Amino acid sequence: MEVIFLGTSQAVPTKTRNHTAILVKHEDESILVDCGEGTQRQFRIADINPCKLTKILISHWHGDHVLGIPGLLQTLALNNYSKTLEIYGPKGTKQYLQNILNMFIFVGKININVKEIDSGKFFESRNLELIAFKVRHGRHALAYVIKEKDKINIDINKLKKIGIRPGIHLKPLKEGKNIKVNGRTIKAKDFTFMKKGKKLSVVMDTAYCDSCIDAAKNADLLISESTYASELKDKAEDYEHLTAGEAAKIAKKANVKQLVLTHISQRYEKKENVILKEAKKIFPKTELAKDFMRIEI
Amino acid sequence: MEVIFLGTSQAVPTKTRNHTAILVKHEDESILVDCGEGTQRQFRIADINPCKLTKILISHWHGDHVLGIPGLLQTLALNNYSKTLEIYGPKGTKQYLQNILNMFIFVGKININVKEIDSGKFFESRNLELIAFKVRHGRHALAYVIKEKDKINIDINKLKKIGIRPGIHLKPLKEGKNIKVNGRTIKAKDFTFMKKGKKLSVVMDTAYCDSCIDAAKNADLLISESTYASELKDKAEDYEHLTAGEAAKIAKKANVKQLVLTHISQRYEKKENVILKEAKKIFPKTELAKDFMRIEI
Repeated sequence: MEVIFLGTSQAVPTKTRNHTAILVKHEDESILVDCGEGTQRQFRIADINPCKLTKILISHWHGDHVLGIPGLLQTLALNNYSKTLEIYGPKGTKQYLQNILNMFIFVGKININVKEIDSGKFFESRNLELIAFKVRHGRHALAYVIKEKDKINIDINKLKKIGIRPGIHLKPLKEGKNIKVNGRTIKAKDFTFMKKGKKLSVVMDTAYCDSCIDAAKNADLLISESTYASELKDKAEDYEHLTAGEAAKIAKKANVKQLVLTHISQRYEKKENVILKEAKKIFPKTELAKDFMRIEI
Repeated sequence: MEVIFLGTSQAVPTKTRNHTAILVKHEDESILVDCGEGTQRQFRIADINPCKLTKILISHWHGDHVLGIPGLLQTLALNNYSKTLEIYGPKGTKQYLQNILNMFIFVGKININVKEIDSGKFFESRNLELIAFKVRHGRHALAYVIKEKDKINIDINKLKKIGIRPGIHLKPLKEGKNIKVNGRTIKAKDFTFMKKGKKLSVVMDTAYCDSCIDAAKNADLLISESTYASELKDKAEDYEHLTAGEAAKIAKKANVKQLVLTHISQRYEKKENVILKEAKKIFPKTELAKDFMRIEI
């Protein structure tokens, strides 16, 4: 799974940070979590073809998380996007999307499939699960989990040791079935092992809440908003945002492997270290997101 | 009058060109012509405070000319914009603006005054006139003229020669009135001269038409779209755009002083000279706009 930060600012962009957008690539899926204004140009600058997109997940409908959607849809249409783009978001998403398509002269057409979701698993494929968690930011806001499924892998080395060569004939082992090779029974349980799927949690705008910890539980990577440092704890509470310290506390309580902070207020433009330091004190394995940063999980 | 190019691309932005937006500053007016996606960040990168804006003029409602409006309005609201922002555009503008304000959760409030305009003068102040011209691009598209009014100036040097010092007592001369100084009658017609106001013409998306020439007539600066070179003349006609050659022809026929080409198709990203060369052959005083370029008229 590869994560590419296309935008990492809070409400107002800065010279180096565009509005929030996170691209997650996994095999045949290319999933965009939030799509702030200017995201289509960030794709361009990052040399990534937006036509590969399969899904957009929307955390909530504040402008800085969604105002890149109309332009992105228009550019997909101009580039003959041929898939059906699936757009998931909280209650209200259908109406907002309708209004988006009526706010300018949309040239061309693409197929979109809009689904309003609540907490719980909302998508499952052969190798991926998408799960939403309700969080505390305005009336309707969601955190997202993108999880690779656990997979049975064949222990090729162990098989080689008993003279069995890899190949398509071993495939049933992956489904837990025993097979016969050269008259010998090969038991699935003896020659396979479980490879745990990677888990990415994205906690966007929210006040501190248990649901964030649930969403982040044991994640390989937690991407969390971190609008303020604790010096603005009251402001964070009033506007339902996380401080860097709270994001780190969530990471620690949820036992995640790695934390990346994003959605940084413009007021830290020249002192970003304040944010990073505060989080690292509580959860050392923390990084600060930057536009175009890439992380392989 | 100062012109600042905040975006110069056609439909799709490139690494170096953002969507169309042109800022025009004149005394107490700060006028934005078109507002493509990402314009608010261009303001930020250019270190210009968007709260100084007084007016937005919209050429037409294709996405690449308007998708920065919602984010800009939101940012003005978050920054306690206290004026009334006047937004002018062709037929349909009121409804589109309404839809914009319903396409996301708008936080805060600013006062806007939206006016749908046709061809003709639509604004006049003590020192400025704004005029619209219907052009040929879709159903409703406008070119704009921003014109300083001609002004009567007092010939201070001539007055000094006859022993009269400058000061507030000379003010009536500016209104064409004769005055008496030290018992001597000073005739306005003898001690004033007419200073011609500067004229800026902005011809955005359009097929070649006489109305473009009318809009550009004797302009000190013509900013013209120039999506394609003549090699794509048919495409330009089909999509109602100007080639570089046509823009130059308009400049020449309209007897403008200077031409700047903008709204350049992404296909010229690595060969922009094709556009510039073609125009220069017909109208030598041509430049190619770049993002953040500034021109003093």
